Amino acid sequence: QCLLSGSWRSNTGCRMVVSTLDKDNRFSGFYLPGPAAGNSELLTSPLEGSQQDTRLVPQPTFYFTVNWRLREAARTTVFLGQCYVDTNGEETLHARWLLREVADSPDEDWKATRIGTSIFTRIK
Amino acid sequence: QCLLSGSWRSNTGCRMVVSTLDKDNRFSGFYLPGPAAGNSELLTSPLEGSQQDTRLVPQPTFYFTVNWRLREAARTTVFLGQCYVDTNGEETLHARWLLREVADSPDEDWKATRIGTSIFTRIK
Amino acid sequence: QCLLSGSWRSNTGCRMVVSTLDKDNRFSGFYLPGPAAGNSELLTSPLEGSQQDTRLVPQPTFYFTVNWRLREAARTTVFLGQCYVDTNGEETLHARWLLREVADSPDEDWKATRIGTSIFTRIK
Amino acid sequence: QCLLSGSWRSNTGCRMVVSTLDKDNRFSGFYLPGPAAGNSELLTSPLEGSQQDTRLVPQPTFYFTVNWRLREAARTTVFLGQCYVDTNGEETLHARWLLREVADSPDEDWKATRIGTSIFTRIK
Repeated sequence: QCLLSGSWRSNTGCRMVVSTLDKDNRFSGFYLPGPAAGNSELLTSPLEGSQQDTRLVPQPTFYFTVNWRLREAARTTVFLGQCYVDTNGEETLHARWLLREVADSPDEDWKATRIGTSIFTRIK
Repeated sequence: QCLLSGSWRSNTGCRMVVSTLDKDNRFSGFYLPGPAAGNSELLTSPLEGSQQDTRLVPQPTFYFTVNWRLREAARTTVFLGQCYVDTNGEETLHARWLLREVADSPDEDWKATRIGTSIFTRIK
Repeated sequence: QCLLSGSWRSNTGCRMVVSTLDKDNRFSGFYLPGPAAGNSELLTSPLEGSQQDTRLVPQPTFYFTVNWRLREAARTTVFLGQCYVDTNGEETLHARWLLREVADSPDEDWKATRIGTSIFTRIK
Repeated sequence: QCLLSGSWRSNTGCRMVVSTLDKDNRFSGFYLPGPAAGNSELLTSPLEGSQQDTRLVPQPTFYFTVNWRLREAARTTVFLGQCYVDTNGEETLHARWLLREVADSPDEDWKATRIGTSIFTRIK
């Protein structure tokens, strides 16, 4: 439990599919924006990340990065979170994220980063 | 010391002018975006906030809000920070801020908020 | 609709009670941490803030500040968000928040600020 | 220019050493908290990340993760930023970061994440 491998849906309607973990607890996968993306130009985009070893901690922390495939400019999101298991064995991922656009200069950097929260449940 | 009243310049080239504090440690003033604003449509905008009482704490925390006067849509920034005094009596304001745009629906809300840091020194 | 006046419950089990708005769209009230606070020392704490005028915008943005009444050190939270109304007339508040502790010096400032998201629905 | 390889110092007194990039623009290295860490238990900790290809973009975005080696509990920081080059060829890294502690349950998750900004210059 609390392996990120599999399919997840976020509270904002996004979905992600995560590969089997390799021996270093790394994974890759795909992120699919939902209607909540509000941006038709957001396409299915690759993700990669890693998590703590579930043999060491039952509710591991994780991070992953999505490199958005956009028609326009590059954007990257990093997610940082933790997997929780309730008494029924249901897994939930709680994550904070930063989304960055490209800026032209340090003077423009101040406005390049957005912040948010996502909560994922497993798609069965 | 560490009354916010007076004129301050941020590390990103913005300036602000803060009024005398009232008896409840509230203040008002104006925020002037610098070249760093990168947005010619950002005009001088009113701010208001409050700080801890410097008779109780030498390095008070503070918050203030800027309601941006924009030609286009409404934006609001909230700053939350602390005033520090060094051994030479120099004051510095360290703040984190959130900047919010208006969104059309909860589905669009995820992308409405930007995050950053500002450091202010007193203009003498 | 989308006046913040009344009683609200957050997705993390907190409650807040907000006063009638004054003529400048300001309000005050109280914030009551729920079990989710995870900190028995968090007591009911005063809040104050303001919102956009609902005669001008149907889904107003708002901000408010909570000055935590704690047995130990001072903490402040600022919330910045927007009120949404769905087709059934149900109101939801979506907010990001920053929570700041007091730090001893600028060197300690880096770790003083936490970030999160809260979603509130009206208690009927 | 704007390869992250080499030694960097942050505005908060931390240092980091980054390896040569591999063919996929990935890197590893070490992060050394400075006096600003305010936490004697923070030890030199491994980092890994990746950046955009400087053959495609002159001012690439990057991210990296630091897995803190702590005597106590696990902590992870993710940095997300961009490398800028000024007219003198001086490189600066501007990054936002999220720092996460382990929480016991979803009810405790709200307070697990801190936020900040770091600016790095090259150590020559």
